Amino acid sequence: MGAIHFFKDDVRRAKLLEAKGVHYMDVGTSGGVWGYERGYCLMIGGNEGSFKALEPVFATLAPGSDRVIPTVGRKKKTTAEKGYLHCGPVGSGHFVKMIHNGIEYGLMQAFAEGFDILKGASGDEVLQDYRYTLNLAEIAELWRRGSVVSSWLLDLISIEMNEDPLLSKYTGYVHDSGEGRWTVQAAIEESVSAEVITASLYARFRSRREHTFAEKVLSAMRKEFGGHKEESLKAEKANRGKGSQSYSA
Amino acid sequence: MGAIHFFKDDVRRAKLLEAKGVHYMDVGTSGGVWGYERGYCLMIGGNEGSFKALEPVFATLAPGSDRVIPTVGRKKKTTAEKGYLHCGPVGSGHFVKMIHNGIEYGLMQAFAEGFDILKGASGDEVLQDYRYTLNLAEIAELWRRGSVVSSWLLDLISIEMNEDPLLSKYTGYVHDSGEGRWTVQAAIEESVSAEVITASLYARFRSRREHTFAEKVLSAMRKEFGGHKEESLKAEKANRGKGSQSYSA
Amino acid sequence: MGAIHFFKDDVRRAKLLEAKGVHYMDVGTSGGVWGYERGYCLMIGGNEGSFKALEPVFATLAPGSDRVIPTVGRKKKTTAEKGYLHCGPVGSGHFVKMIHNGIEYGLMQAFAEGFDILKGASGDEVLQDYRYTLNLAEIAELWRRGSVVSSWLLDLISIEMNEDPLLSKYTGYVHDSGEGRWTVQAAIEESVSAEVITASLYARFRSRREHTFAEKVLSAMRKEFGGHKEESLKAEKANRGKGSQSYSA
Amino acid sequence: MGAIHFFKDDVRRAKLLEAKGVHYMDVGTSGGVWGYERGYCLMIGGNEGSFKALEPVFATLAPGSDRVIPTVGRKKKTTAEKGYLHCGPVGSGHFVKMIHNGIEYGLMQAFAEGFDILKGASGDEVLQDYRYTLNLAEIAELWRRGSVVSSWLLDLISIEMNEDPLLSKYTGYVHDSGEGRWTVQAAIEESVSAEVITASLYARFRSRREHTFAEKVLSAMRKEFGGHKEESLKAEKANRGKGSQSYSA
Repeated sequence: MGAIHFFKDDVRRAKLLEAKGVHYMDVGTSGGVWGYERGYCLMIGGNEGSFKALEPVFATLAPGSDRVIPTVGRKKKTTAEKGYLHCGPVGSGHFVKMIHNGIEYGLMQAFAEGFDILKGASGDEVLQDYRYTLNLAEIAELWRRGSVVSSWLLDLISIEMNEDPLLSKYTGYVHDSGEGRWTVQAAIEESVSAEVITASLYARFRSRREHTFAEKVLSAMRKEFGGHKEESLKAEKANRGKGSQSYSA
Repeated sequence: MGAIHFFKDDVRRAKLLEAKGVHYMDVGTSGGVWGYERGYCLMIGGNEGSFKALEPVFATLAPGSDRVIPTVGRKKKTTAEKGYLHCGPVGSGHFVKMIHNGIEYGLMQAFAEGFDILKGASGDEVLQDYRYTLNLAEIAELWRRGSVVSSWLLDLISIEMNEDPLLSKYTGYVHDSGEGRWTVQAAIEESVSAEVITASLYARFRSRREHTFAEKVLSAMRKEFGGHKEESLKAEKANRGKGSQSYSA
Repeated sequence: MGAIHFFKDDVRRAKLLEAKGVHYMDVGTSGGVWGYERGYCLMIGGNEGSFKALEPVFATLAPGSDRVIPTVGRKKKTTAEKGYLHCGPVGSGHFVKMIHNGIEYGLMQAFAEGFDILKGASGDEVLQDYRYTLNLAEIAELWRRGSVVSSWLLDLISIEMNEDPLLSKYTGYVHDSGEGRWTVQAAIEESVSAEVITASLYARFRSRREHTFAEKVLSAMRKEFGGHKEESLKAEKANRGKGSQSYSA
Repeated sequence: MGAIHFFKDDVRRAKLLEAKGVHYMDVGTSGGVWGYERGYCLMIGGNEGSFKALEPVFATLAPGSDRVIPTVGRKKKTTAEKGYLHCGPVGSGHFVKMIHNGIEYGLMQAFAEGFDILKGASGDEVLQDYRYTLNLAEIAELWRRGSVVSSWLLDLISIEMNEDPLLSKYTGYVHDSGEGRWTVQAAIEESVSAEVITASLYARFRSRREHTFAEKVLSAMRKEFGGHKEESLKAEKANRGKGSQSYSA
């Protein structure tokens, strides 16, 4: 659980093993360190026969159907309700898990940007009349009640902010799992636009650099065409507090 | 409820009314058409005195604290738990509601892209070995169980896909509320990067055009530098099914 | 010339051929159908010895140094000035060409968006006071004179718009070459954020669909949480002309 | 020249002055510090009568038509060829200049990303077989010859890299002019997708922060759901050099 596998590796391995009479299956899961308590789900790839043979194992491992409110209007009962699903042939379990994580990247980044804007509302770039110092921890807690953004990720944000509203123990250096990268590759192979998932991945890349070379190239061009001398972070801070109208160029 | 107000209008109106001795308050809410059943939350802006005077009303309107599992480790009890919050001075209620909706845009787009990639896995651009025909409705239902992406929006997707797995009754023409636009404006005023929220807004703009003028400009340039004749959708379809390696230029 | 090769294929092929005593070289070029007249450049990968042996060929093919104004302050004279460059080991020629094309995607999309906004300035969503009907062909021609955006791509836009200012002969169905996709893959392998290049690729993907499945997912969610009925393009058009304030939700 | 004005301010001022019998005009220009030598262009807004009255001044100021190769196939001769253009009513001059700068942001970012990927090709995340140490200064110089990306901005990059190939004198702290922000606002008012221009603006915002609050929110969520301890930049560096397959989660 938690181990990360690229679905194309599953396909390759399954072919090698099939030749030796071994049926390979791939099972992705999501639930994290809370899985034992909250449940988790199993995304399974492999041939039908192997799935059937192992189904009792999956049914035993899966969290069962009683922890989640039933979907309104849903009459059929399938294994999805019990927390496991035979997604398709070999590789499809990890493929579905991979896309799950891609979505997760996007959800996380959406929350992250929203809280960044809420926090920024107190900044000195904002005109005084529209400047708010907001209590992020209470807002996170409030939104857990009936709002459209209510979700497990929001629950987690509320836990974290309750302890430490400005998350001061984190620096903001954000790792990425291979699954975000692979999701983008899959989107590109299918000619599907995945703006948000990709932007989420890039935000993580950026978080791990002090500065990018791209930024130096921008500064160099600005110096050339406009004679703009590059400011420092310190100078920027000194120049703040004059409303949003004061750009130099 | 549901009426949309720009927070800067609140600030302007409040000033006009203050001069006449009227204390203006702004209250945003989220919960949608399900609010009566699932609860909803109130985001309130205005001066402290007015809030205190009206608090009994908010407390009565608000859904109360018993519908959501308490946040792990949270000891303090505030009005957030009851479903209402005095966010700050006039305008802050609608400001917080606006950012809520901005986040909502991003969450929706993340799910939308993920399901698009899942669906695209059966496409003829994908090499045969990695091609999967996935049951999107069952996957949505499965992910409701313990996964990191479990959320109310996913619950809604599951309801919709349960009835109509490929959402064939929708064309994909997506309106946008003013609040997504305003969130982007707020981000820009604060110099905060809001890639994902903005990309979500643009995806909606794009959904409402047959083609953009930008795309014609691209075609015109390609024609000029490469002699590329613009293909039609029909020709593209005819050319598919050859794996992902066959680009012309 | 113009044939597109993935640099990793060069590396693979070179290994196979090296075993047979054949030295493989890869040469990318850019210049398009205007190359004969305007010149073009050669980006060359392979071992040093092979490059030296073939250099007379490259020097003969290359357009020479007299067609471009010398770079201010540059004293050294290298083969770059003559229009060819030994970039590095096998694959590096096509790698550099690939990145060239990735940049090209971004440049094209920047122009495309800018002209889309210029055109949109006459739209009925814009308040009357700020509505302009601009002559795009003349603006393109004007910007060729000393402006920061002056470039060959702008020259091409000016040629096209001069004949047909609204590019009415194009529908806006935009193909993509493999090199945009590969550039994004390279960026991801290096953990480099490539927002603009990737967004340019996705804009092309999107241009080739009537609607995406992602958009249907968005419509389905909006229907569920807000009871928003999906509007049609026709209804949208009928509702226009009321300034930008009139969003429904 | 170079002073930046928001076109809506022009409209407002013009109304105030019109009441006093003064005809207000707005003139944007582009050409930067090189304008004297390379020429520059004038984008003019105001009523027809005022434009006609002042046209001799514009014609004198403008750089004239002899510095640029004529557009192929263009027969008509307009003022655009002389380097000035009456774009439309008051505000339209600065509107056109604003969009010019928006495009400029996108072009700059496209080059910046491309050179970042070229530089990153030598990084230890890249598998040894595909690792290249490229001479960026020579590539910039090469591409000036006939390539599709040839442009004034590329000329400037070549000047800068010729002196200092890795741009080591820049830190990468990139200011933004108001015109990028305004271009995004205009796009949003017109419901036009401007992905690339907006992403370019956000890249500059990000360049001016050590870390964003958004990144801390991401780290906090990862800690909660996965027990991921936040790594430091130092640890990351120590873990590199193992090819691109070694993600932790």
